[in-house]
Amino acid sequence: MVDQPRVARYRQFGDPSVIGVEAQDVPDPGPHDVVVEIRRSGINPLDVKTRAGAQNVPIPEGGLIPHTDGAGIIRRLGSDAAGLTEGQRVWVWGVGREVGTAANLAVVPAERVMPLPENASFDLGASLGIPAITAALCLSRHEDRLIVPSTYALAGRSVLVRGGGAVAHFTIQLAKHLGARVVVAASPSKLQAVELAGADASVDRTRTDAQQALRELSPDGYDLIVDVSPAANIQSDIDLAAFRATIALYAREGGNSAEVDFRALQAKNITLRSIRTIELPQDEMQWAADTVTWALEAGALSVGEAHGLPIVLFSLDEIGQAHAAVEAPGFHGKALVTL
Amino acid sequence: MVDQPRVARYRQFGDPSVIGVEAQDVPDPGPHDVVVEIRRSGINPLDVKTRAGAQNVPIPEGGLIPHTDGAGIIRRLGSDAAGLTEGQRVWVWGVGREVGTAANLAVVPAERVMPLPENASFDLGASLGIPAITAALCLSRHEDRLIVPSTYALAGRSVLVRGGGAVAHFTIQLAKHLGARVVVAASPSKLQAVELAGADASVDRTRTDAQQALRELSPDGYDLIVDVSPAANIQSDIDLAAFRATIALYAREGGNSAEVDFRALQAKNITLRSIRTIELPQDEMQWAADTVTWALEAGALSVGEAHGLPIVLFSLDEIGQAHAAVEAPGFHGKALVTL
Repeated sequence: MVDQPRVARYRQFGDPSVIGVEAQDVPDPGPHDVVVEIRRSGINPLDVKTRAGAQNVPIPEGGLIPHTDGAGIIRRLGSDAAGLTEGQRVWVWGVGREVGTAANLAVVPAERVMPLPENASFDLGASLGIPAITAALCLSRHEDRLIVPSTYALAGRSVLVRGGGAVAHFTIQLAKHLGARVVVAASPSKLQAVELAGADASVDRTRTDAQQALRELSPDGYDLIVDVSPAANIQSDIDLAAFRATIALYAREGGNSAEVDFRALQAKNITLRSIRTIELPQDEMQWAADTVTWALEAGALSVGEAHGLPIVLFSLDEIGQAHAAVEAPGFHGKALVTL
Repeated sequence: MVDQPRVARYRQFGDPSVIGVEAQDVPDPGPHDVVVEIRRSGINPLDVKTRAGAQNVPIPEGGLIPHTDGAGIIRRLGSDAAGLTEGQRVWVWGVGREVGTAANLAVVPAERVMPLPENASFDLGASLGIPAITAALCLSRHEDRLIVPSTYALAGRSVLVRGGGAVAHFTIQLAKHLGARVVVAASPSKLQAVELAGADASVDRTRTDAQQALRELSPDGYDLIVDVSPAANIQSDIDLAAFRATIALYAREGGNSAEVDFRALQAKNITLRSIRTIELPQDEMQWAADTVTWALEAGALSVGEAHGLPIVLFSLDEIGQAHAAVEAPGFHGKALVTL
């Protein structure tokens, strides 16, 4: 174990300065927990919103250790933590708000710990968590059927991804690995990134003829649409959808509601799925984590500037700056705290 | 076979008087067809709209034989119509617009012919078709999973059905047979009918406190909601939905579009499915027809005044009056042409 473990913690909501760093006692895992020596702690927009007090959750007695995603090495196993071994490289997907990976030693429920293959870096492992699981959930059904993870699951299908953040990044890579043709509509500043991530084509969503361009890239419509901003895009999504398409909504950038044309929806037998990763039942998230790991083992997921998702590293003492970076408008990439 | 077969036909769109009745030549089935001696021809709102020219489909050369649903006895088998036998009692679900059951002898694709158990009357068999298949499709998924037909598939689940027509009737009966608790919101004139159909509780949808009454009947929310009128009800549906609920929309009474609150949708991980039975792929409709037959064999489906869906019979010569009855405002029940 690390000699002098440290942990980040906050005891009140507020700006990034509320997060302090202090010495950590070596934690005892509960029977179903493991202690992970964290090498990289991943920061998600959710972590930043939680710290700012925007998530309407209470701070537990003793304060809250930020971040729910991370990667590291298992150092201790709870008595009933089956299927894992000490010394194993892992990625963890807290997904809820309770995990707290901004620590040298994180206590993680064993069911939220996945093996990190040798070919995958800690940077990659800590970037997965909520974004990659959300991507898997968005791609998990087509024509109302569960997609068995296979490289042919979406063969011959076209997928439209809206957005250019971490969820879009892993959605592109996972959809490609499932055999789909992937088109992305994103801001002009993110077009290069989504192509580096593996998109077959990308369209500047601010172009006045963006809709026509997207249609020309898939004249028979898109079988699966993964959207970050339904209030802005729902009508466009429906117009671009293929017969029996599934539209998966994973966020609400730019608005909470919009008019929906049920006639158009029904004419194509479209299914609209709303995905809020946190709070889903364990079996559902487990399926998604397994799917992510399956793609990871095949080398289908990657991060870093050359792959379209730059990694920005911060030390534990810089955790406040890391939060500020994630909050800054136009931030692109994945912020990780090194430990 | 019948001695002097007759057939109803129209060669132009218009009011019910466009339908004529004429002598019928004994038809030859194609290799994958069967000839069914029709005993009851079922009339759906779709048939009436098609006849009125509202469906934007061309009339084939030689005219159009109305109605896609029916029940009768197989009289001839095409050379490749496997799994069926001459003399077998059957229900048929044309679902498309091409079948034409308003005839003594209807040519029906073998894949759209289902056995009619001895315990099921021709009245019941001819009432199934589109309405019962739509009901099965609306109930076919819950939490994104295909419901295997079993009497425990929806055990412990609560289903809210909107409407009081034939689709609602079979949705109530099928949901009960799948083990659900069923609450119905319907017009005051249909409350008795939906309770006779088997609903555990019903609420007058015109009551000012209807929403509160529905909530009190299922305080944890409804797991499955089947709605006939999303433009009017979508916000109420979302408010009444349980976590991870599925809302199935099968019609658009009273409007084509409405504002949808994506925040509320996402907070509960709700899936919105739009069902347009006609034009779905054969495998999907076959699953639904098998499910209906499974419930039928168990005696779980019924029609008639005592069961909440009165049967109104017309002779073939009265087919125009039958259409006029179905078109009349407030019509409740199932209109069948006897042959």
